[in-house]
Amino acid sequence: MSSDAPLADSLHLSPKRVRKLLEPYRIEDGKGFRLKHHDPSDTAGRLLEKPDAAALLAEGVHVLAQLQEKLYAQDRWAMLCAFQAMDAAGKDGTIKHVMSGVNPQGVQVTSFKAPGTEELAHDFLWRSVRALPQRGHIGIFNRSHYEEVLVVRVHPEMLEHQHLPPEMVGKRIWQQRLEAIANLEQYLARQGTVVLKFFLNVSKGEQRRRFLERLDDPGKHWKFSPNDLAERAFWDDYQDAYEEVIAATAAPHAPWFVVPADNKWFTRLIVVAAMVDALHRLDLTMPPPTPAQESAWDEARKALDDEK
Amino acid sequence: MSSDAPLADSLHLSPKRVRKLLEPYRIEDGKGFRLKHHDPSDTAGRLLEKPDAAALLAEGVHVLAQLQEKLYAQDRWAMLCAFQAMDAAGKDGTIKHVMSGVNPQGVQVTSFKAPGTEELAHDFLWRSVRALPQRGHIGIFNRSHYEEVLVVRVHPEMLEHQHLPPEMVGKRIWQQRLEAIANLEQYLARQGTVVLKFFLNVSKGEQRRRFLERLDDPGKHWKFSPNDLAERAFWDDYQDAYEEVIAATAAPHAPWFVVPADNKWFTRLIVVAAMVDALHRLDLTMPPPTPAQESAWDEARKALDDEK
Repeated sequence: MSSDAPLADSLHLSPKRVRKLLEPYRIEDGKGFRLKHHDPSDTAGRLLEKPDAAALLAEGVHVLAQLQEKLYAQDRWAMLCAFQAMDAAGKDGTIKHVMSGVNPQGVQVTSFKAPGTEELAHDFLWRSVRALPQRGHIGIFNRSHYEEVLVVRVHPEMLEHQHLPPEMVGKRIWQQRLEAIANLEQYLARQGTVVLKFFLNVSKGEQRRRFLERLDDPGKHWKFSPNDLAERAFWDDYQDAYEEVIAATAAPHAPWFVVPADNKWFTRLIVVAAMVDALHRLDLTMPPPTPAQESAWDEARKALDDEK
Repeated sequence: MSSDAPLADSLHLSPKRVRKLLEPYRIEDGKGFRLKHHDPSDTAGRLLEKPDAAALLAEGVHVLAQLQEKLYAQDRWAMLCAFQAMDAAGKDGTIKHVMSGVNPQGVQVTSFKAPGTEELAHDFLWRSVRALPQRGHIGIFNRSHYEEVLVVRVHPEMLEHQHLPPEMVGKRIWQQRLEAIANLEQYLARQGTVVLKFFLNVSKGEQRRRFLERLDDPGKHWKFSPNDLAERAFWDDYQDAYEEVIAATAAPHAPWFVVPADNKWFTRLIVVAAMVDALHRLDLTMPPPTPAQESAWDEARKALDDEK
């Protein structure tokens, strides 16, 4: 993390120790992945303390903002961060708190809602591909192409709206979709887009607590939809679907982060740490100027001087 | 081809014989593919005669128009036809003559030129994916994503404009791009998009003849660019690149048609035959109305009657 890394310095966390912090949550090989081995209330034991959280998050966001500037200036890599979770797991709050310090000129957040007519008329990846970040940018997907193997899988009647030829809706459809997603992400990685996927792993009990909070606080009523409760009834189906999704699409070039989400302060720290770590893995130094550039600059300088 | 198939009936060519006509040009397994085994001046020997060509083409376009209407009404499948060729092989003329009888509401032709700034800032497939046909439509790509493994391969200095991270420009880049294209096409097929790829195979001698014609005829001057001659100098490199492209991406769900292109009448016939054949392979019958639909229609009829 060198000179621009107060996240590391202020708490004596070297890049190596940041990576160690992330290690239990970073899945880059899905083989044998089991969601039940991941505790939603985990806060990394002695590695971090809640009292330090606000300062650490602020530092993390600061470092992220610096790295994003380099990403933008160098203009070779892009970063895509996809967020998936059950309702009330904290997607919106995390995006808000982690991304708010970053220059929005280099960041696009796309929130995917239920697909509309034009979207349904295309292949299922179409709308996500259109929203991919260009070089030098960070793209945030609030929900993503993964909805197609999560909500649509839990409610397969939704496939009807996609108007697929019936012979293309076979038993292997979910496996084929997962394969299509894995292929897309490998391709993107080869094109210079760093792909990070975040599953904010909230427990069923914490979701209940947050729902009640929304119902009890008039200021939070707008956040609650009766449909949230309907989806809660499918909890186990969703957990199974997430487990399969992560097992099938985790890869070194497109890791999943299973982020404990019962404690918001911890969720946000892990997310910012993962982004910082991913950017640190890139070589974001600016290339030294070429002789041609240098002489062009000299000429420009001379022309401006001569204007006097 | 049944009742709506005058292409077949008028010359006693059954769908089976149309398929037989296409057979030598349809590549669905690239293993061992060699371009030199394909004669640009081939006109299928005794199967077809030039004097019949105009009538046959008119019939073919008529059938295509009928099938496109069904495709549109059924709204489940899409068809993508990508055209690639050396200059003066007849891409524009073929598209014009084959597609002119079809209702443009269900057809989009996208002509891909040299990529612009926004396109270069994204992954190389981005601009093609955005232009994909929606269900019920036919999409024509005049040049396509294949340019990325043809012109860019022959002129690798073009990669510079794509601003890829240097570590992503390795020896395997062309193989990886071909793999990405093959994966995309398999995915599209599974999503209900029929993918057909046409290589209009013109000979170097015939290209020379057509260039001279353009230079000699003031009405055709606009078709000639000095750059065409510059590219002609890379003839053998292009032939090698095409051979590799076809070998790597021909598949049953995304066949290549190596269309002899020294005789325009024959080129157009093969192209229309391939499209007609591909649509005939689909089940484009309209599903019978459901009881719910029938009763809705009855109610609508009653409401309109009651307005009197």
